[in-house]
Amino acid sequence: MAQTRHITLPQGFLAAGVKCGIKESGREDLAVIVGQQMVSAAVLTTSNQVVGAPVLWCRKVLPAGFGWIRGIVVNSGCSNVCTGRQGERDAAEMAALAGRLVGAEPAEMLVASTGIIGRRLPMAKVRSGIRAAVEALGRRDDPAVVRAIMTTDTRQKSAVARVRMGGETVTVAGIVKGAGMICPSLAGPPPRGGSRPGACATMIAVLTTDAVIAPRPLYAAFKKAAPTSFNAVTIDSDQSTSDTAVVMASGLAGSRIVPGSAAARRFAAALAEVCHSLAVAMARDGEGATKLIQVNVTGAVTSRQAEIVARAVANSPLFKCAVHGGDPNWGRILAAAGKSPAKVRPERLSVRIGGVAVFARGVPKRLNLRRVEQYLAGNSVLVELDLGLGKGRFTAYTCDLSARYVAINAEYHT
Amino acid sequence: MAQTRHITLPQGFLAAGVKCGIKESGREDLAVIVGQQMVSAAVLTTSNQVVGAPVLWCRKVLPAGFGWIRGIVVNSGCSNVCTGRQGERDAAEMAALAGRLVGAEPAEMLVASTGIIGRRLPMAKVRSGIRAAVEALGRRDDPAVVRAIMTTDTRQKSAVARVRMGGETVTVAGIVKGAGMICPSLAGPPPRGGSRPGACATMIAVLTTDAVIAPRPLYAAFKKAAPTSFNAVTIDSDQSTSDTAVVMASGLAGSRIVPGSAAARRFAAALAEVCHSLAVAMARDGEGATKLIQVNVTGAVTSRQAEIVARAVANSPLFKCAVHGGDPNWGRILAAAGKSPAKVRPERLSVRIGGVAVFARGVPKRLNLRRVEQYLAGNSVLVELDLGLGKGRFTAYTCDLSARYVAINAEYHT
Repeated sequence: MAQTRHITLPQGFLAAGVKCGIKESGREDLAVIVGQQMVSAAVLTTSNQVVGAPVLWCRKVLPAGFGWIRGIVVNSGCSNVCTGRQGERDAAEMAALAGRLVGAEPAEMLVASTGIIGRRLPMAKVRSGIRAAVEALGRRDDPAVVRAIMTTDTRQKSAVARVRMGGETVTVAGIVKGAGMICPSLAGPPPRGGSRPGACATMIAVLTTDAVIAPRPLYAAFKKAAPTSFNAVTIDSDQSTSDTAVVMASGLAGSRIVPGSAAARRFAAALAEVCHSLAVAMARDGEGATKLIQVNVTGAVTSRQAEIVARAVANSPLFKCAVHGGDPNWGRILAAAGKSPAKVRPERLSVRIGGVAVFARGVPKRLNLRRVEQYLAGNSVLVELDLGLGKGRFTAYTCDLSARYVAINAEYHT
Repeated sequence: MAQTRHITLPQGFLAAGVKCGIKESGREDLAVIVGQQMVSAAVLTTSNQVVGAPVLWCRKVLPAGFGWIRGIVVNSGCSNVCTGRQGERDAAEMAALAGRLVGAEPAEMLVASTGIIGRRLPMAKVRSGIRAAVEALGRRDDPAVVRAIMTTDTRQKSAVARVRMGGETVTVAGIVKGAGMICPSLAGPPPRGGSRPGACATMIAVLTTDAVIAPRPLYAAFKKAAPTSFNAVTIDSDQSTSDTAVVMASGLAGSRIVPGSAAARRFAAALAEVCHSLAVAMARDGEGATKLIQVNVTGAVTSRQAEIVARAVANSPLFKCAVHGGDPNWGRILAAAGKSPAKVRPERLSVRIGGVAVFARGVPKRLNLRRVEQYLAGNSVLVELDLGLGKGRFTAYTCDLSARYVAINAEYHT
């Protein structure tokens, strides 16, 4: 699998991942991804009210959420959150050092960090890591880049989409890490703290494209893609202090994308496709997950209400344990929908699991439970709720809740 | 342990619990608790929008939430939820049969059921159970009553308080079941669907007292006690379709309680004390729980905001796994507080675990982690968050999240 290649598939990008000793495991823990020249960029960050120094740094570099930058330094193993002024200086130093080594200003480099909260970065290791990564920058097929951003992720997650523009192929590529403390509510500045019903892990996504697009329309397309991709994922309802998604455009392929044009829509669709693929991959690779769960709510009074219901179900520990156990316990789906603040009328509500109606407009269906059990034994579960009230719809992505999740998070020691 | 005795300690009550075969385990599964005469009563039920037939029945018997009744029939093993009109007829039949056997009208008997959703009650068994229970009614010390309302509960939970009134001792007693799908948001009619941030298991509480108090002031005192007791508990954020709490007053001890009097306040305090004891016992006995966790939030802008933050922390799977693992990972507390929609400013925020400051006004404390680890090895954990913004305060009760919780709920088969 040429995983790393994805991030450097679009023309004009260089990347490298190294092991610098932040992670006790000794695995890759620092990556540098940069344009060969300045790139058009957009960044979305967590809407948690407690944020890490790297998030503050990104907001300082791109106060409007978009602008021209050179690239990003990402590390795993330590999130540099709740580390006070020194943490902010550390994040700034990472940007400055990486910038200097690639010939850019400090304020042209973003920083993203993931890992334990409340501990200072081991800066001597980080410095040597940045030097080694910049030394190793290249376009070669090296999985170390995506490995360097992973924490409890079990799989390297990447996606790519291609679109024809002005007779050329434009490529959009991306990598993502997620696993636990995942319930992103990514937003542009100013941070929209608290507008989500149950917003929730650290996800870091880095996307690259060789499209010719200015920062503002790039930001608009990215922001539009987030609600139905990254922000539609909840692994454990716990929103991270460090969620960061960045997209960078080198402008080396295709014709200039004019906002509002058909080309702009096709580019936005390709960007949304990559965001969505990364989001679904993140849900499937949640901590301890054995199954991907898709919760499809239709017929809500509004789309916002559909989202509230979808999140209530996707965040229900009881429902997720039932799916883990392969138990067609649809009563838990109804209980979760009913506890949400969105309008639900049981007599209008219908529920299907894997396409099999288990509850239709208030009436339990006599059904072949064995058939639903067999379906639940698979590794992808689709749950559909039709509220029967309106046209609002939303799809949330989550995973089952396993004893492994508890083990990972009871043992992930401070 | 004279557990059952509690419910019949106040004068004027009879109770019995029997095994009638609803539970596959063959354990006690049906209880009848009645006054020897008509009793003053108040009932609070779930605010879930999907409710069981027994909840609908209780609302029909006591449309205002209070009135005169004779008693209650409770069964475990089947919740009679999502069972349509037939389910409603079954609940009504339970009330009618129990009523007839004790010499009361159907509309003088409440019904509460807990267990699997979506399955009809095995009425032949239920009928024989009601007959056997009424046959066995007494004031003797028989733990079968509380056992009959238990599902995944591991302990018999009861409480008692005494207060002097008019030269006599007035007793307030109660029993409760909880365990999983516990995040009650009990309310009087009309149901207040959806006003809670993360309202969540089936709890059934039955309280008795021999106080002389009319239904309306009894309801007022009960309703006032709920937010800081039952409704302050969350085991898994999953609110049940069947939560029911009832209090019955026989009027056989002390002088008549006049609303607004000092005596009324003392009675209310005793009632609140029993509710609180039952609630804390329920949190400690959550499914898979090894520790009781108390989350104390102070310094919020309002008490409502304090509640939102306390619930965000108490419902955080990551925080609860950390406590389970005895890991002083305070970063997860901050992340949970920050994701809540209530106002939080990290630089004003302080966190203490077991009285040890781990984070003070934005600054991590250099601390003796070993000391906090030792504290977390105990079976009761106090977490205090001072938001530093105002005078709002709230205390939520929960338990740790263990692999056992997952096992129970992945294996609890339909």
